[in-house]
Amino acid sequence: MRIGVLTGGGDCPGLNAVIRAAVLKGTDTYGFEFVGFRDGWKGPIEGLTTPLDRSVVEHILPVGGTILGSSRTNPVKMEGGVDAIRATMARLEIDALLAIGGEDTLGVATHLHSQGIKVVGAPKTIDNDLSATDYTFGFDTAVQIAVDACDRLATTGASHHRAMIVEVMGRHAGWIALHTGMAASAHVTLLPEQEYDADEVAATIAKVAERGEAPLVVISEGAIAAGGDVTHTGAELDAFGHVQLKGAGEALERILNEKLPDLATRVTVLGHLLRGGTPTAYDRILGTRSGLSAVTAIAEGNFGTMAALRGTEVVQVPLAEATGELKTVSQARIDELKHVSG
Amino acid sequence: MRIGVLTGGGDCPGLNAVIRAAVLKGTDTYGFEFVGFRDGWKGPIEGLTTPLDRSVVEHILPVGGTILGSSRTNPVKMEGGVDAIRATMARLEIDALLAIGGEDTLGVATHLHSQGIKVVGAPKTIDNDLSATDYTFGFDTAVQIAVDACDRLATTGASHHRAMIVEVMGRHAGWIALHTGMAASAHVTLLPEQEYDADEVAATIAKVAERGEAPLVVISEGAIAAGGDVTHTGAELDAFGHVQLKGAGEALERILNEKLPDLATRVTVLGHLLRGGTPTAYDRILGTRSGLSAVTAIAEGNFGTMAALRGTEVVQVPLAEATGELKTVSQARIDELKHVSG
Amino acid sequence: MRIGVLTGGGDCPGLNAVIRAAVLKGTDTYGFEFVGFRDGWKGPIEGLTTPLDRSVVEHILPVGGTILGSSRTNPVKMEGGVDAIRATMARLEIDALLAIGGEDTLGVATHLHSQGIKVVGAPKTIDNDLSATDYTFGFDTAVQIAVDACDRLATTGASHHRAMIVEVMGRHAGWIALHTGMAASAHVTLLPEQEYDADEVAATIAKVAERGEAPLVVISEGAIAAGGDVTHTGAELDAFGHVQLKGAGEALERILNEKLPDLATRVTVLGHLLRGGTPTAYDRILGTRSGLSAVTAIAEGNFGTMAALRGTEVVQVPLAEATGELKTVSQARIDELKHVSG
Amino acid sequence: MRIGVLTGGGDCPGLNAVIRAAVLKGTDTYGFEFVGFRDGWKGPIEGLTTPLDRSVVEHILPVGGTILGSSRTNPVKMEGGVDAIRATMARLEIDALLAIGGEDTLGVATHLHSQGIKVVGAPKTIDNDLSATDYTFGFDTAVQIAVDACDRLATTGASHHRAMIVEVMGRHAGWIALHTGMAASAHVTLLPEQEYDADEVAATIAKVAERGEAPLVVISEGAIAAGGDVTHTGAELDAFGHVQLKGAGEALERILNEKLPDLATRVTVLGHLLRGGTPTAYDRILGTRSGLSAVTAIAEGNFGTMAALRGTEVVQVPLAEATGELKTVSQARIDELKHVSG
Repeated sequence: MRIGVLTGGGDCPGLNAVIRAAVLKGTDTYGFEFVGFRDGWKGPIEGLTTPLDRSVVEHILPVGGTILGSSRTNPVKMEGGVDAIRATMARLEIDALLAIGGEDTLGVATHLHSQGIKVVGAPKTIDNDLSATDYTFGFDTAVQIAVDACDRLATTGASHHRAMIVEVMGRHAGWIALHTGMAASAHVTLLPEQEYDADEVAATIAKVAERGEAPLVVISEGAIAAGGDVTHTGAELDAFGHVQLKGAGEALERILNEKLPDLATRVTVLGHLLRGGTPTAYDRILGTRSGLSAVTAIAEGNFGTMAALRGTEVVQVPLAEATGELKTVSQARIDELKHVSG
Repeated sequence: MRIGVLTGGGDCPGLNAVIRAAVLKGTDTYGFEFVGFRDGWKGPIEGLTTPLDRSVVEHILPVGGTILGSSRTNPVKMEGGVDAIRATMARLEIDALLAIGGEDTLGVATHLHSQGIKVVGAPKTIDNDLSATDYTFGFDTAVQIAVDACDRLATTGASHHRAMIVEVMGRHAGWIALHTGMAASAHVTLLPEQEYDADEVAATIAKVAERGEAPLVVISEGAIAAGGDVTHTGAELDAFGHVQLKGAGEALERILNEKLPDLATRVTVLGHLLRGGTPTAYDRILGTRSGLSAVTAIAEGNFGTMAALRGTEVVQVPLAEATGELKTVSQARIDELKHVSG
Repeated sequence: MRIGVLTGGGDCPGLNAVIRAAVLKGTDTYGFEFVGFRDGWKGPIEGLTTPLDRSVVEHILPVGGTILGSSRTNPVKMEGGVDAIRATMARLEIDALLAIGGEDTLGVATHLHSQGIKVVGAPKTIDNDLSATDYTFGFDTAVQIAVDACDRLATTGASHHRAMIVEVMGRHAGWIALHTGMAASAHVTLLPEQEYDADEVAATIAKVAERGEAPLVVISEGAIAAGGDVTHTGAELDAFGHVQLKGAGEALERILNEKLPDLATRVTVLGHLLRGGTPTAYDRILGTRSGLSAVTAIAEGNFGTMAALRGTEVVQVPLAEATGELKTVSQARIDELKHVSG
Repeated sequence: MRIGVLTGGGDCPGLNAVIRAAVLKGTDTYGFEFVGFRDGWKGPIEGLTTPLDRSVVEHILPVGGTILGSSRTNPVKMEGGVDAIRATMARLEIDALLAIGGEDTLGVATHLHSQGIKVVGAPKTIDNDLSATDYTFGFDTAVQIAVDACDRLATTGASHHRAMIVEVMGRHAGWIALHTGMAASAHVTLLPEQEYDADEVAATIAKVAERGEAPLVVISEGAIAAGGDVTHTGAELDAFGHVQLKGAGEALERILNEKLPDLATRVTVLGHLLRGGTPTAYDRILGTRSGLSAVTAIAEGNFGTMAALRGTEVVQVPLAEATGELKTVSQARIDELKHVSG
């Protein structure tokens, strides 16, 4: 069998772990051959390939990002996209696809599967907002980077009696902020799941400052003040036509400067730092096990599935499960966080 | 209610997270008062206490080890130990205990519970070998430190065409080695769960070296060569009368030097490095959630239980579940690892 | 003798190293007593003190920021400031001051010395722009944090074929950008010392992108495009009335988006991250040796001097040397950098 | 001109920085061609080469070790070694050599230069014991790794009231121990430069333990107790016939166990960890500047020299200066350390 591999959507630490594990086990155990498709779905659409064998993947486990490149190209939304993929697969004698990506990428995979193309998925998102899996790789690394940053910012905040605001990724789901806030001893953590009450936030911060602490606030890029004019969501389109929210941290700073004029504040936007660099051990392992599970699914003809973490095990679940509904932070987790905040 | 808190056994990153979370929620939500017992069970036996309130725990989340100190004192194995604890509790008007520790500490807690003492546990071991919970805090940090070390050793190994042997903790269960080996792209990983075949290991290493790679071997301190004279288990007693295995890495080095005389080898024993320093975000969160769950159990009168990770949730399970049987690495996980080794 | 210690200006990693070393040697070798003044010059002006002895400084070497707090209060620029300091010193029977800070703080120290107050300084600035010393502590840590960030951003840039722009501190001197750019393999590094030619920068970036690399740009917050309308210097006043330049990175992004519309870009502003957290070993040592040198100067009556690094030695030089002229990046160092850029 | 590049002796972080900088500037500025020699002097002796151009060096700055490989082969000590090098250079039309290494490698370079071979050097040793340069690259990284390890070990030591002994590299010069001890707040630091008094060390450690601290000891692998039977110098020959001292840390542990039987101790031998992995920013910059200086020397015909750090500048000095005498730690630096120890 010949397998085409691609990575789509925003990159994240752990993608190379999946690629490496799939190639090593696929080659050694099943005798598969592999072809790398470059830049997400653009690869199979345009026939952009790169070699993929043991020598290529040997040292990529600690490397961040994806050696295959990525893009947000969506064959389902363009005319002839699916046919082009089918043609490329036929021309290169590729039997099946391993598609590693987030909601968009797996949505395409689901569609291709429904069109009779043999495809298996591996879920990826630093945002951890994919249903059907406990955690996605990339998330642990993102949280670790954010917590390291908060640890650093806490000491400079304390030296100057300033409130430090740290904005992290998370447009629709606040998992990164939730875990960062809990692990960094943040006094306030604001998520997209609930509009925040600006007065209440200011009161908490004032209370923290009064007892001599430097307030630390973690805020998701998608967090919005209740009743606010949402001026901070200066939504812009990036080069890919993707909406970029800008300014949740700065919006909060404006609010605090107004309500607590005596308190100096500083905003740090971590942004793309969170998706870069070498994966944590946790993400290397989750990525590796996902790759092993996915390639086994191909060998067993278990198409239309993706690798999912369930407790301590990685299992295959139907692709459709992952892409139905965004997994947001539950009220129970928010309550939990409140008990160690403030 | 007044709650006594203690940490027992080998320290590990995340202990302070439990203490902090229990004190914060216990104080704010339930109005509990807390007393810190020093140095494990020695504290309640001898009445060694230290204050424990918000101001004490405010900044301890990123701090490694335990602010309460630890010891391996076992009241069940000494005459009058349990009575002394009962007397201390009465004298200090302590209603219940929160005992954070590994198999020994929780075994004592189980016994105390059977004797009518109100006790709740939180499981801790960097070895991850406690049953009844998916993972224990401290483990993720230990693996991360080991993987960082392997990443470093890999480059010097490659520069000199040497085989690098990295010995990690794990006397009876090989979880640290399993995860380190998988996350560090080790060519060979040796666990206590299975005696290793020295010839087979040497053959794999020779094969790796022949294709121009610097072989990386991760070995548990408890891993033993099959049919060997076990000379490496130069078991020694430490100051606490605890058996210390020494030399799994060096034993393997001797074997390789004999079987592959042309290959230079270097052994690094990570030892106590793995249990030190600031916890990873993962362990801070698991520790925090364990502390929240445990203090809630106290408030609800749910004694004789301990906090356990099950999938994405932390729940209370009977203490007895944790201390029955050592959780060792399954054959399935070992097979998985083999697919990305060699 | 009783010595008052204070830290002024922006905090930076290594301040606690100075405090600790001065207190340890001062106490043990010279029998000095120490008093901590809180929040920079505000401390001696208002008589805000905190105890300072071995037990206080024992564990502060790895701690970022300053345990004494800081401020930008300037006694020379306020009426009666110097007299207030003199009065506090008399009241608390303080014989001499150890002032740790940057240009402003040391400028005050120089003035106080000229007024007959016994004072010794230790220079601090993450910007490394103080004359009279080879390097200042805090700088090495700042560069290391920036380089770690660039390493992370490089992998996500490569995965998406994006140009990554990293803005670092440095309003008037580009040392942090210079060292970060060199250590992070940046393709373009822009400093405040020279206005940059936007066309030339765009051409270099285009060339890098064409050979398949993801362009990495490091830019000082004070770097300005030649002939530009300087719209990016949206100078704002912070809570301390200090000018805050904003947007060097974003200004460059706008330029690139205009000149290279097909190239996606992402800006990361590292800001206060660079001054936070535990110091590198280098800064711990430089801080420690500065503290030792300064306290020896006090013991020897060598007032009006500050600790300066000269090659491998820390020596005392006249305070006035440090505060005369800003140390900017030389043309030779800029040329050097160009040879490994592009 | 065609330049051959080689790296010899023990690898260290920063070697790739030298290679990269020399190739980039040599190619772009001087139009040089480069040939990589593999495995130290073995490369030019046996004619083992590897391509070396911009594409090869583009991403190696953050990579530890050396992409060229290393060895301890010494052409001066083998028959016909120098002639073989001359022959290889003639056959491959190589005009000059860039030799990057420590005392042995630079000693060979000095000899070759005296024999009329055009050679320029760049000094490297994690031990920092080369004369004629303020610091060598690799040293800063080694110290940073050791300090990180000490920070971790300190928390587990404190939790268990144990003395932690950390053994670092340094057979004849104690620079790594000196800087590690100072940056890690070690209570005792033992160097090869001075035999230590076992009773005095035990007394200091006892004093530290009595005031409730967990003693931290940093010891060079070459440190020896005065009047001891030196049993710890179980000198062994490694695969390269190089003497390996073993056991300075364990020897001290035996001494402490005898003199302070109530104090538990743990030894960690950091060993090769110190020479592995990505270089610090400091070492990347020093390596880069060394490479730039060396290649400029070649272009200017300034042979028989090596790059040396002098204050803030990298300059070329005669090769012979570096290899005359070992640079050991001065009494002044030892005294300095004592003021922050104990």
